[in-house]
Formats: sequence, structure tokens, C-alpha cells
Amino acid sequence: MALDNRRLADLAAHDAFIQRHNGPREEDVTAMLEALGEPSLDALLERTIPADIRLGRELDLDPPKSEAESLDYLRRLAAQNRPFKSYLGQGYHGTHLPTVIQRNLLENPGWYTAYTPYQPEISQGRLEGLLNFQQMVMDLTGMELANASMLDEATAAAEAMALCRRANKKARSHVFFVADDVLAQTLDVVRTRAAYFGFELVVAPAEQLAEVEAFGALLQYPGESGRIRDLAPLLADARERGIMTCVAADIMSLVLLTEPGALGADIVVGSTQRFGVPMGFGGPHAAYFATTDKLKRSIPGRIIGVSKDSRDGQALRMAMQTREQHIRREKATSNICTAQALLANIAGFYAVYHGAEGLTTIAGRIHRLTTILALGLQEKGVALAHDSWFDTLRLTGVDAGKIHGRALTHAINVRYFDGGDIGVSLDETTTAHDLDVLFDVLLGEEHGLSVRELDERVVAEGASGIPAACRRQSDFLTHPTFKRYRSETEMLRYLKRLENKDLSLAHAMIPLGSCTMKLNATSEMIPITWPEFAEVHPFVPRDQVAGYKQMIDELSAFLVEITGYDHISMQPNSGAQGEYLGLVAIRRYQAANGEGHRNVCLIPSSAHGTNPASAAMVGMKVVVVECDENGNIDIDDLRAKAEKHADALSAIMITYPSTHGVFEAGVREVCRIVHDHGGQVYVDGANMNAQVGLTRPGDFGGDVSHLNLHKTFCIPHGGGGPGMGPIGVKAHLAPYVANHVVTPIEGVNDDCGAVSAAAYGSASILPISWGYIKMMGARGLREATELAILNANYIARRLGEHYPVLYKGENGTVAHECIIDIRPLKAASGISEEDIAKRLMDYGFHAPTMSFPVAGTLMIEPTESESRYEIDRFCDAMIAIREEIARVEAGEWPADDNPLVHAPHTMADLMDDGWERPYSRELGAFPTEAVKAAKYWPAVNRVDNVFGDRQLICSCPSIDEYRD
Amino acid sequence: MALDNRRLADLAAHDAFIQRHNGPREEDVTAMLEALGEPSLDALLERTIPADIRLGRELDLDPPKSEAESLDYLRRLAAQNRPFKSYLGQGYHGTHLPTVIQRNLLENPGWYTAYTPYQPEISQGRLEGLLNFQQMVMDLTGMELANASMLDEATAAAEAMALCRRANKKARSHVFFVADDVLAQTLDVVRTRAAYFGFELVVAPAEQLAEVEAFGALLQYPGESGRIRDLAPLLADARERGIMTCVAADIMSLVLLTEPGALGADIVVGSTQRFGVPMGFGGPHAAYFATTDKLKRSIPGRIIGVSKDSRDGQALRMAMQTREQHIRREKATSNICTAQALLANIAGFYAVYHGAEGLTTIAGRIHRLTTILALGLQEKGVALAHDSWFDTLRLTGVDAGKIHGRALTHAINVRYFDGGDIGVSLDETTTAHDLDVLFDVLLGEEHGLSVRELDERVVAEGASGIPAACRRQSDFLTHPTFKRYRSETEMLRYLKRLENKDLSLAHAMIPLGSCTMKLNATSEMIPITWPEFAEVHPFVPRDQVAGYKQMIDELSAFLVEITGYDHISMQPNSGAQGEYLGLVAIRRYQAANGEGHRNVCLIPSSAHGTNPASAAMVGMKVVVVECDENGNIDIDDLRAKAEKHADALSAIMITYPSTHGVFEAGVREVCRIVHDHGGQVYVDGANMNAQVGLTRPGDFGGDVSHLNLHKTFCIPHGGGGPGMGPIGVKAHLAPYVANHVVTPIEGVNDDCGAVSAAAYGSASILPISWGYIKMMGARGLREATELAILNANYIARRLGEHYPVLYKGENGTVAHECIIDIRPLKAASGISEEDIAKRLMDYGFHAPTMSFPVAGTLMIEPTESESRYEIDRFCDAMIAIREEIARVEAGEWPADDNPLVHAPHTMADLMDDGWERPYSRELGAFPTEAVKAAKYWPAVNRVDNVFGDRQLICSCPSIDEYRD
Repeated sequence: MALDNRRLADLAAHDAFIQRHNGPREEDVTAMLEALGEPSLDALLERTIPADIRLGRELDLDPPKSEAESLDYLRRLAAQNRPFKSYLGQGYHGTHLPTVIQRNLLENPGWYTAYTPYQPEISQGRLEGLLNFQQMVMDLTGMELANASMLDEATAAAEAMALCRRANKKARSHVFFVADDVLAQTLDVVRTRAAYFGFELVVAPAEQLAEVEAFGALLQYPGESGRIRDLAPLLADARERGIMTCVAADIMSLVLLTEPGALGADIVVGSTQRFGVPMGFGGPHAAYFATTDKLKRSIPGRIIGVSKDSRDGQALRMAMQTREQHIRREKATSNICTAQALLANIAGFYAVYHGAEGLTTIAGRIHRLTTILALGLQEKGVALAHDSWFDTLRLTGVDAGKIHGRALTHAINVRYFDGGDIGVSLDETTTAHDLDVLFDVLLGEEHGLSVRELDERVVAEGASGIPAACRRQSDFLTHPTFKRYRSETEMLRYLKRLENKDLSLAHAMIPLGSCTMKLNATSEMIPITWPEFAEVHPFVPRDQVAGYKQMIDELSAFLVEITGYDHISMQPNSGAQGEYLGLVAIRRYQAANGEGHRNVCLIPSSAHGTNPASAAMVGMKVVVVECDENGNIDIDDLRAKAEKHADALSAIMITYPSTHGVFEAGVREVCRIVHDHGGQVYVDGANMNAQVGLTRPGDFGGDVSHLNLHKTFCIPHGGGGPGMGPIGVKAHLAPYVANHVVTPIEGVNDDCGAVSAAAYGSASILPISWGYIKMMGARGLREATELAILNANYIARRLGEHYPVLYKGENGTVAHECIIDIRPLKAASGISEEDIAKRLMDYGFHAPTMSFPVAGTLMIEPTESESRYEIDRFCDAMIAIREEIARVEAGEWPADDNPLVHAPHTMADLMDDGWERPYSRELGAFPTEAVKAAKYWPAVNRVDNVFGDRQLICSCPSIDEYRD
Repeated sequence: MALDNRRLADLAAHDAFIQRHNGPREEDVTAMLEALGEPSLDALLERTIPADIRLGRELDLDPPKSEAESLDYLRRLAAQNRPFKSYLGQGYHGTHLPTVIQRNLLENPGWYTAYTPYQPEISQGRLEGLLNFQQMVMDLTGMELANASMLDEATAAAEAMALCRRANKKARSHVFFVADDVLAQTLDVVRTRAAYFGFELVVAPAEQLAEVEAFGALLQYPGESGRIRDLAPLLADARERGIMTCVAADIMSLVLLTEPGALGADIVVGSTQRFGVPMGFGGPHAAYFATTDKLKRSIPGRIIGVSKDSRDGQALRMAMQTREQHIRREKATSNICTAQALLANIAGFYAVYHGAEGLTTIAGRIHRLTTILALGLQEKGVALAHDSWFDTLRLTGVDAGKIHGRALTHAINVRYFDGGDIGVSLDETTTAHDLDVLFDVLLGEEHGLSVRELDERVVAEGASGIPAACRRQSDFLTHPTFKRYRSETEMLRYLKRLENKDLSLAHAMIPLGSCTMKLNATSEMIPITWPEFAEVHPFVPRDQVAGYKQMIDELSAFLVEITGYDHISMQPNSGAQGEYLGLVAIRRYQAANGEGHRNVCLIPSSAHGTNPASAAMVGMKVVVVECDENGNIDIDDLRAKAEKHADALSAIMITYPSTHGVFEAGVREVCRIVHDHGGQVYVDGANMNAQVGLTRPGDFGGDVSHLNLHKTFCIPHGGGGPGMGPIGVKAHLAPYVANHVVTPIEGVNDDCGAVSAAAYGSASILPISWGYIKMMGARGLREATELAILNANYIARRLGEHYPVLYKGENGTVAHECIIDIRPLKAASGISEEDIAKRLMDYGFHAPTMSFPVAGTLMIEPTESESRYEIDRFCDAMIAIREEIARVEAGEWPADDNPLVHAPHTMADLMDDGWERPYSRELGAFPTEAVKAAKYWPAVNRVDNVFGDRQLICSCPSIDEYRD
């Protein structure tokens, strides 16, 4: 072997991760370029990206780190977060994530790389998990209906407010009542939303609801300082007076407290964080949203429903997506999209694993410890603000300064109220030993109390902080699912069984246009379950989270450099929230400059449905800009409409490259026109994966963009969330992004309300994006973008010989995705884009994006992470399907009896001895050799959407169903 | 809800883990007892366990800890291991385990809970992984054949010595030559083995081999202090003189060095630890064993071979198990059984992920850094002991004291030779920055060297420590498997695809008699990949491993209490090694007492095959003791044979409860008889799971037992290893267990040689057993045993109505497993135990143990971890199979065409449109509703064993095969 003459630096393997992230090898790139007839990658890029927006230099980022170096560095940062034990409550609580769920769900790519379950046949596992979640919420809240799920308690409350307005059309008042013991961050978010909906907020003690005329009201249960109110009279009175009521309830407390449904609430919301989901400095967690049956057609977000498949077997599906913004666009009153599915699943399995008995023990223990604490304090003469409690006490008349000093010594955080009161919230992780320490901290070490003796008193006296009228009387979690999986072995098998029903990136390419299903690398995922990141309360003093701060600051700096903006706000915990905040910032900025009247938002006809929905939510009037026949923004139409609305023009929302998968040549011109007419430019970051390292929205005219960190920056989709949607803004907008009432953010104006419950949104998943950028470096990021574009063009070329490719750029190339048109085929054969999508399952693939942005098409995005092997396998499948369609066209197979309309094929099909179809079982289920070598089975046959919509069942099926 | 009146302690959930580990719920226990007609669990136990051996008290252990408490405690222990960076070499090296492999294999129950792949149809995934391992070893060593795999390099070398003797019958010499630069621990283990084989060791410089007459020789490549010798002339000369040669080679060095096969070696052994497997304070790692084709019928251990299935498809299997001790018993010359399959798979996938190019970069970087270090040291006047090196330098004439001081300051370990030389070994984790630190430590901080400048010199001069004659000329890893999975996405899918081919505990009960496939809890597994446990070199100074020491001491104390022995030796890294060490201790003890002539070992006819094999390996003569018709030891026969051999009686080896699954009433009597005749009692711990907390071998007469920590104490089977086989001994044997030449063990005589390469065997998996005992506590452990016995008796009762249960105790109960007799059925129907085993796969189960200890039977062990749900599902399957057999008996189905003889059924069967069998596809593949709900598919049809044995192919199939 010849001596290696590379320098040591080149042997250092710092680029090794780039090779792991990107799919194509050097020889593959050569071969693909050859197939495209391109002499080089540069040549392809020159033909693809308009010259006037090319970055023309490498991004200014550190050189790439190896996986080991990146993890080492992050481990050192993590060590700077100080491991205080927090008793801060306020919606966030310590919890024990059962390790079997941690390892086999949260840390398992079979779960976390799955997509939102739009294709139910290949999503039955996580759909069942989410159905369990809904059942759990319905049982604990006592409501008839629950969705799965919401971003956080605060936004859930804001959605509840909006639902009250929609559903309570009779009420003439525009007042929304908020009890003054609602969580501060909830009020903050509700306030932001109310402003643009035009609602008036009245914040007052809960009892005063009786004196207010309103369309809706929000109460907290228990109140934020721990008090448990019997809400029944208040709720009954409100109902009588035509006020819809929302109760924000602590899910753990509901194990012991009378369920809000029995109290008379119309809507119940809350966080499920403390059901096994680490606090993670604020998120991600799933919130719940439960309503009465009456509201089932207006509930926001996703509801999992029970339907049937083409063999009449039971099949789950997302039942309520039609109410989403995809259809309603600017008529939508919610832009919720990503929905924390992974975290909802964790909370659901936590309930499955513990069952009613286990939860009762846990909640009982928390309450018992709190009662012991209360009795001890009272014995020592400490006054409590309330004589009721579940897990939280508010101490009055104490020496907060001394307590603070002792708390620091013992490395614990209690809550310090303005005015000197002290708050203490206990949780699942609190032990009797912790109580000893708490007494020491709260009373000084000479207190002489014995936890054991206090406990004996509690038992003897039957002491409890729960008022008799508020004690839960009803059973919950009685369904067999909540009884069978109590041993770890059974739980493990359940998790694996469900995992293996679903198609994820661990199986195959998921070529979803606009969704950028790229590698979620293990080394990016590892840090998120480190206790130093996972077990941090979002409201701890800032000097305890130096590691988080530095990581977030570094990530912000990376994103500033990547986007060309001046500032990043990390608060939005979904892309839709990011859009919303971006528009809010524009409105705030314009208002501050005396242009608050500007309220027209231009949106191209090709836009994603969340764009108009978000615009509507900030009170903007949507004006649609047409596209030309090539799918590009019609610049003449834009100019005309900008002129026409010049006085009222607030913003334009564009996506770049466009949702048609094209780098539009006129983007600079588009931005210029809008700016010239006094508007701001919102660049939707959904397609950022085609830009990184090659062009920057901040350079070509954008004022603000949101970034889907769960698309371009490697946060996994989690089967439908979590996501993160930070926004980049130009300097003039920076003071107008979101602040936070509990933990203020530097550089943002004080009066700028929050859009998420936590200051940095889902902070604990930010290390994923940090790690991606750190390990890729400037060169790696650029190469990733280049390969994403190469892969897409290669697909467009291969498929272009068999299907019409709908839109291309001026030089005949596509960006990072391509749209193929199924309409002509459908006209000729009757085979629809849906048939193709389902047939792809038989070939082992997830469908591309269907009918977006153009009905009757499929949009395909391979990303840079897919190897040529996989891309060829996908193209082979698509071409084979085209040939199958040809046989239908030729009349060889009837239009209603062929492998396409019967797709997907299941094991049930194969074991059917009465098989009488005009094609073989083998052709049905094993159409290629590759499939035979590694078959993925759809769990059910094609799901009946109409049936499911007509009969909305969103609870776990009865035992009898299981017997069938 | 009524107030919970339990005390806080009862609410503390400390028993929660017990409920997770054990399968049956309280109501299940009641129902199962009812089915057995037993009034209580105690009543069942009284009927089952002889009164004279009942423990009669609870074990003296700490109360159970919760999972969180146990992990917290262990995290604190782990933090006591000091994170020094080690340059100690000597067979252990830092490495980067690719995180995608860590998460999806090492930390994935789908991989680690699988059993040894005796049933190939449901083991194709890990068999393919092991085939890759073999191919990697063959390529890198240049040998024609490799097995998968060995326990460690030292025992592999000892096995190589034994193979030399077996295969070189012509040689009259009993001398085995060992080069004096063989690793010290290897020599130690070889010396122990040689003593009882009756070989004479000659240890001398390698060159002196030319002057020695021997049957075999062992050389190290590179030598333990780093020197690279051109072995070709030595090996050629040895071959000419009829000496078989073994080369122990560093696998990483072979990437750059001429492969030993090309040098002329007959056998090549070594560790694959540095291919991604953490050092783990000594283990577990897989060693390799490669030979020429000529030796293929004598190679020890397991070889994976390529065969075909009943549809002529390619199918893998363990080809060489017939050479194992199960068949040869006392004629066996190796007792190897557990074989580090999980670690071999890791090393194999490490090679797959890096490929030849990646490994060349890694090895090249290690060598380059070493060369830079060498040049820098030489420039500063430091003398090196050798002018050749791969990764290791030996510095002479240095001030070791000063270096030691500086090394401590910088928290690094270098090797300190007696006499003042210093050794430094670099590895994959070494960086250029590390070299700076090393220069500071070795030269003092004023050295003025620049790594960058030195590197420029290396490149300019083409400097290298590898002699020209020793540079590798041949390609390796050219098979497509080593090229395709280079991106993380492709590797992830490959790992998942293989995982899902295999049936593991994550799918279903694995009811293997004598193998105790219980829960391997996540909370037990989590600590083993913590860096504080994983990244520790076994030869670091003891003050750096206080955490390990305390954990091992605590585990030893637990096991002393559980067994009733006085002392535990943690060294044996498999059950078979434990047996061997137990017998060695007996022989050493007897020799020390002037009874070295005692060499008769009594072994009941029912014993596991390793027992006679182990006895043979320590030079004992096996005398078989008969069993009576009830399967119990025939005490009269025992007495007669003990008397007959009284003068020579060394020991008896018994298993308790017996391998027949019965608590023999006469066990105290058995022990007494042997003791009375001067013998020692070896109690095989394989069935310890029926004893823990109820009876103790140390109390009823045992002098020594090995404990299979991978059976009773929750270490997972890993698809065929790792295991741990520590032994418990009475005080008189304690000084005679294994010491360690590099890291001496307190309390053991100095001259007691080692049996494993590392002092504490596979130390890094000991936290698993520690955690199990810590979380279960005395009550939990006892309950586990009781439930294991209940589950087994429930199965015996349910199946007893359909199959004859072969052995029962005096009162009609079985212990923790039961044997059902298939011979009468076979006589009546032609359906064999193998047909039933394969048919069970169609029902989604792994087969029970087949034909052990009695041919024509199935031995079923449910363990306590299986729920009643799963046990009933299994019994239902067995009963349904019995009904199928009845249809064959009745002539309804032909004996050669029925679902049993065609089992297992695969997807290939189902898609066969020419199905003409007398039963439906559905009956074939989906015999029950439970199967339809969660089908596990065997990857291949029944494997042809004869074909595979006849045509031994143990390398990856050619590309053409892939094309087929």
C-alpha cells in the first residue's frame, strides 16, 4: 500500500459526519451528473439558482467537528447547567420518564423519524398511541372528546378562546374573561392572540366571572398558587348566562380531583408534560384539548378517529384534518399544524404503563407529601395562603431572604413571589428525604420535624388538602389497554409491535415535498435525553442555565449567518407559530411607526395553507397574487395589487424556492416591489433546505422568515411533532418579536407578548440543530444543499421520461423537489394520485406529498440524505407503477380491479384463499425483488375516509371490537 | 375516592420495579393457583422444594430501590471512576463506537435480547451480522476461515494452543512455544490451560522458535511493546519443522500490515475490541479465531455458514455447532459456549460502516500520529526500544518518575515498565491536540515541538514505522456489503432490517429451558454505555476505578448472600469459563493439600454437555452417575461409584434443580456422600433462577458454583453472548481461584493463573446484575423465584393435558421448567420435536430447548417475567399444535404434507399462487387471531442442515448470489 500523503488535518476525519449525513458517494454524484448531462455540480447549480441571489462565498462558520468532538463540546456546555432541584411548579414538574419508553420510543428512530400520519395504512402504530392519549385525556378530564394534541398549555388556552368565539356566535360581548390565577405565561399568550382577534380581555378573580358579560372564560384548576376551587357553581352560572367556559387543568391533579367535565366545563386544556415528558427547559411537551361532543366539528388540531378499511377491518386515521388550514386557508381560525405527536405518545404510554392504580399511587404520593409539608409548616407557625392544595403551597409572612440563602446552599429552587411569599410545588420525583431538606430550607435546620411522624398524623387524621366537594368520584382508564401492559416485558412488546406497524425513515425514503425528511442523526439526538438538558425547569434563575444560554446563543449566531438576518427569536415551537410571530412582529413594527392601519397581506396562489391562516390570525386581509403558467409569481399581477393596496399594504408572504419547487428568477424584484409600496417581506422558510450555503433570504430582500428546524435542521418529525419554528428578522423588527412575562428576553420590547408558553419554545431539542450545523460546518451545509438539488434533478430526469414534471426553472432544472402531474394519467386510466400513493406502500415507500400545491399532483423531495441506491429504488418503483397504469389504460386490467386501486396490499389479502383478481398475489404484495428481500407490511387495507368522517369515534374501541 | 391510608413508605413505590420485572399480576397469581388447585403460593412451594434445604428466612439485602434511585446511586458510583485518558495499549484501546450502532444495536432490545441463533429461520439478521464479522476477520487476517467468535484474545490463544495439539498429531513434543512479547495476560491464561492439558510452555524471544521442538507456537504481531517483526521467515521455518503456528494480531494494525495468512500462519487470533467496542474495564469484547481451510473441522466455537432453505433460497445457519460440547461431552477439547455475539456484531458493523477506505483512514491516522510522536521524541534525544511501530512506542532511558508526575497532572495514563521504560499506545480517539499533551508529559513543557511541523516532515520524508517488508499489499473488505452502508441513513436501515428478521424477547416469550430468558430491564442496561463505565482501560491504576471497585464489591456481597458461599470470583466471562475455574480451584486446592492425584469427576447422565467438557479440560476423568426412572440421581449408583473411586475422587458436578427441572429431594445426601469420600461438590448454577431467596447451594453442600449472570441475573443473551460466569466458593477454595498477572487480585494466591484476559471478566456489564438485585431487594428476588416456579407449574398443568410431562418432583410439581415428551407422538404421527419447534415460529414463538437433556423432548422455561397473557398464548399455541398433530395421526393430513412439516411458513409460501397443500394459506401462516394482530415472519423456510454441513461456506455470498 502506498503511504498516505494527506496531511494530518485531512486524516483527522472532521468531514466524516458530512459523509454520514449525505447519501450519495462521490461516484454516485458523478453518475447522476452524467445522467443529467451536466459537466459538474457547479454547472447544475448555475443553471438552477439565479445569479443575482447567489451567496458567492462560503458561510462564515467554524470548520466541521467530528461526532465525538461535537458531543464532547456539548457535554461540557451541558455541565454548565447547574443541577438544582426545582419546586417551581407553574405548569412544569419533575417526572420519571419510564426508561422502557425512553429507550424504545423517545430514543428510537422507528418512532421519532416517522412523519405525520396522513397515510393511515402505514401509521397504525402511532395512531393507536395517539388514540390512547385521547382516551386518557377524555377519562381524566371527564370530557366527551379530545384531540391529539396541542403545542403547549398556553397556546391551547388561546385556541380555546378562539373556539369559544367561533362556537358561541350568540354572545354579543367581545370580552374574554381570564381568572387572575391562570398561569402567567398562559395569560401572556392569550393576550397576544386576543389583541389581533379583537377580543377584550378581563382579568379578575375567578369569582368575578359572575359579574362579567363575556363570550368565554378561562379558569385554572388548581389555581397557579395551588388553591383548589370548587368550580361547579361558577361554571353552571356561566353556562346559564351563555358564557362558554374553558378550564386549564393540571393533568396529575385530575387523578384525585373531580373532573372538569363533571363540573360543567365546555373545554378543558392543559399540559401533559408531567406524564413522563422531561421539562427540557420548556419543551417540547404535548398539551391536551378536550371538549364536549357538541364542539366536535370546531375543535382545532388533529383528532384520531376509528374508521374501517376496505376489508371492513378496524382502522385508525386522523379524522379531523379537513378542518385544518390546508382546506380553509384564510377562513381558518387556527394555524396549528405540528402537534407534538411524539410527546403525546410518551404521555399516553406513561398512562398505559401506570394504569389507573399506578397514577393513583403517584398522585396520592405527591399529595400526601404536600399535606405533610403543609402540616409541618403550619405546626411551626407558617401561614399558608390557601387551605386547599393538591401539590402546591403558597407560604406567606416568611423571611424570603433567609429562605433564598438556604435554598441556594441546598441547590434547590422554590418560587419567590413579588411581595415575599414563597411557593413550593411537589412532583413525582419528590421523596421523603426531599421533604427533610425542604423543611430545613423553609424553616431553618432547627425545626425538629419528623416526616415519618407527620405522616402518621396525616394517616390518623385523614388529612388532605383536597376539599371534600372536589374529590374525584369516577373511575378512569378502565379500558383494557390501560391494564395489560404493566410489566416491562409487555410494555416493550407493545411499543415494538406498534413501531413495526409504521413506516419511518428507518425503513425507506419518505419523499415528501416541502417536508424535508432528511437524516436525524443519532449524534444529534443523543444530547436531548441527557439529564443536564432534559431535567431543567424553564423558570430557573438564568445563572443556572449558562450551558443552555451558550448553546442557544451559538445556534442563533449560526442561523443569523445562514439566513442573512440580524436576529433570531427561538420562541415559536412550530413553523406555524413562527409564521404567526413573524407577522405579529411586522404588525407591531408598523404600529410603532404609525402604520398600524396596514393590514393587507399579499399571498401567492401557490402558498401553503398555513400562510393565509396565519395572516388571518393577525387580523390581516389576504389578497391573492396569481401565478403564471410556469407556476411563478405573476409579477405584473403583483405590481398591480401592490399598487392598488399601497396604502394598506402590510406584507407579502412568499416561499422560496417556491412551493412549486423552483428558484424563481424574479424574487429580488418581488421583494423590491413590496418594499417600494411600504410592505414587509415574509419569506416562508419551508424550503430553506434548497438555500443553505447558496443564497440567503436576508440578502435578497426578506425582512423576516421562520425556519422549520424540523425540516432543514434535522429535528425529527416525531410522527407529527415536535417541531421548532424560530424566526430570523432584520434589525428593525428585532425589538418586536416575542418577550416572556416570567423570564424576560434581552433586546425585545417589554410590551411584546409571548406566542409560546416558554421563552425559548422547545429548547431541549435545539441541540439537534446545533449539532447538525456544528458537525457539517460551512462546507458540509453547502454540499448538503447541492446534493439535495442534485438528487431532486436526478429524480425529475428519471421520472420525467414517464410522468410530466410540472414546473421547472428557466433553464429546465428544479430546485430541491419536483412535482409530477397525475391529472393526464387519471383522465386516461382513472388511476388517481391517491392510488399511486397507496400503491407505493406495496413497494415499501411512503407517498410523496399529494395534491399540494396543485391538486392531482405528487410532489417529491428526496433530500441530500438519500443514497443513489434508495433514489433509484424509488424511481424504479414509480416507473413500475407507471407501467402498471399503462396496463389499466390498455384495458388489460379493469379500472376497478387492478393492483393500484386495491393498494395497499396486506397480509389479509395474501391469505385470502378466494383470490380472484386479474393479477397474482406476488404482483400485489411483492412487486419487486427488493420488496421480497425486505418487506414492509401496511397494517390495514385502504382506509375508508368517508366512513370515518361520518361516524366520529375517537376513543379506544370497546373490548368487543378487540374480540372481533 | 377514599383517602389512601397506606403509609408514606408504602406509597414510595420502591416495589414498583418488582411489578415491572415480574409478569403475573396479583389476580393472575390467584387464577393460576386456582388452576393448579393450590390454596397459596406457599403451599405450592412447600410441595416443590424439599424442606431440608429451605432457606427459612428472607435474604439479608437492602430494601428494593426504585429505578430512579438505583440509577442515581450508580451514577454517583460511576462518577468515582476518574476519567483519565489511557495510552496503555496491551490489547485494549480507545475507540469510537459509531452512535448509530450504539443506539440501534447495543442499546436496542431487538438485538440484545435475542438468543443464540440455534433456530436459523428466526435468526437471519444476526447471522448475517456474524457472517460479516467472519468475512472481515478473513479479509484482515488473510485466512480462509474464521469463526464468530471467542471470549477474549487470551482464551482464543489458549484455544489455539489446544487446536495445535489436536491438529498436529504427528508432533511428538508436548512443548508449546510462546514468544516473550505476547501480551502478559494472554501468557497467563495460556499457562493455566497448558498446566491441565499437560503441555510444557517454553517462553522465549520469538527468534528462538527456530531452536525449539514444539507442536505449536504463539507469536504476537506487533509485539506487546510495539515492535513489528517480519514473521514470514519464522513461520516458514516452523511449518517446515512440523510446528503449527498461531499469531495473535492486533486487528487495527492489520489494515496496514501484511496479513498473517500471507506470512504463513496456521491460526490467527486477536481481539476485535478496538473496532468500536468500548474497553469497559476489560470486557465484554469479541475475539476472533481464523485458520486455514485445512483446520475447518477442528476449529472451536461457532461458525456461521451459508446453506439453503426448503425453497432453495439462501439461508444462514450456525454450521459448526456439532463440534461443540453438546455432542462431544467429555471428548470435547473446548467448552466454549457463549461467544460474545453482540460484540462481534458491533465490530462487524463497525467495519461495514467504515469500509476499507474508512478503516485505512483510521489506521493511517493512528500510525501517522505515532510516527509524529516517534520523530518528535527522537528529535529530543529520547531512545526508542524498537525502530518499528504501528501504534505503540517503548521509550528507554527516560525519567519515569518525572513523567509519572506530569502524567498525573494531565490526567493521562502511560505504561510504566519494570525498569523504568515507558510505553505509549495511540488509538482511534487520539487527536493532534493529544499529541501536544503527550509531548508535554513525556518531555516536559519546554520541548518546543510542533505537531504540524513534524507532520510536514513525515509527509515530506515518507516516514513510517512499518518496515517495508511488512506493508500490506492486498485489498480487503471488497464485498459489496462493506461498500453500501456508508451513510447513516443506509446503516440505520440495514440495522433495522436485520433486527426485524429476528425473533427476540421484544416479540414474544422465548421459553428456553435452562436458559432463563427473563426481562433485561432498560434501567439495568442504561449504565453500561455511560462513558464512566464504558471508556475505562482494564489496567488503569486502581485508584482511578473506585466506582467500579465498589460496584463489584457490592455485587459480590449480594451474590455471597444469595448463594451462601464465602467469596465470589468475577473473572470468568462465560458460564463455561466459570465451570472451568471452579474445577481448577478444586484441583489447586487438592494439590495444595497433597491430593493432586484426585482426578475423578462424577457427573450425572443428565448433565449439560459443558460439564464433562470442562472436567476433561482440567484433566479429570469423567465417571457417569446414572439417573433413576424419575430422572433423579440414582443415589445407590452414586454411593457405589464414590466408594469405588474414593481414593481418586476429586469432585461431583451436579445441577440444581436438576436439568430435568426437578428439586431432587436427595441433594443433601448427594453432597454428603461426595464429601465423605473426599470429593468436592460443584453445583452448576444454570438453574439458580429456581433457588434465589428460597434455598442456597452453599447451605446444602456445594463447595463451588458458577452463576450465569446472563440467565438468573438479567444480563441479556445478546444473540449468543456476552455472558458472565462468576463463581461462588467456600472459604477453603477462595485462595485458589484466578488471579491476574497485570492487576493482582487481593486474597488470591499469587501463583493462581488467570482464566480470562481481564481481572473481572466482562466488568462493564456487571451493573446489569447489580441493578437487578438492587431494584428487587430480598422480597423481589424471592417473589421472582416463586413466580418462575408458579409459571412453570401452570404450564406443566395446562400442557400436561395434551403432552406427557416427563419428570416431576415427589409431590407432582416441577421446578422452574418442565419437559414434555414428544417421542410417543412422533411414533404415532411421524411429527418430530423439530417440527413442533418450527411450527411454533408460525405462531410467533421461539422454540423451547430441543432434545436436552433428553432426546425427543422439549424443555420449557417461562421465567417470572412472562405475563399470564403470554403464557396462555403460548399454551394455546402448543395445544393448537397438538390438535394439528392429531389430524396427522388421524390421516386427515399426509405425514409429509401438513402445516407441521412445512413449518415455518414464510411470505414466499403465501405468495405462491400454485398452493396445493391440504390446508389453507391462512392456517399455515396465521393459525390464530393473535398472530393476525401481530405477525412475526420467519425470514426463510426450514433450513437444510445437511446441505450446509456438507458445503461449508462461511464468507459473504458473492454478488451473483445477491442478484439471484
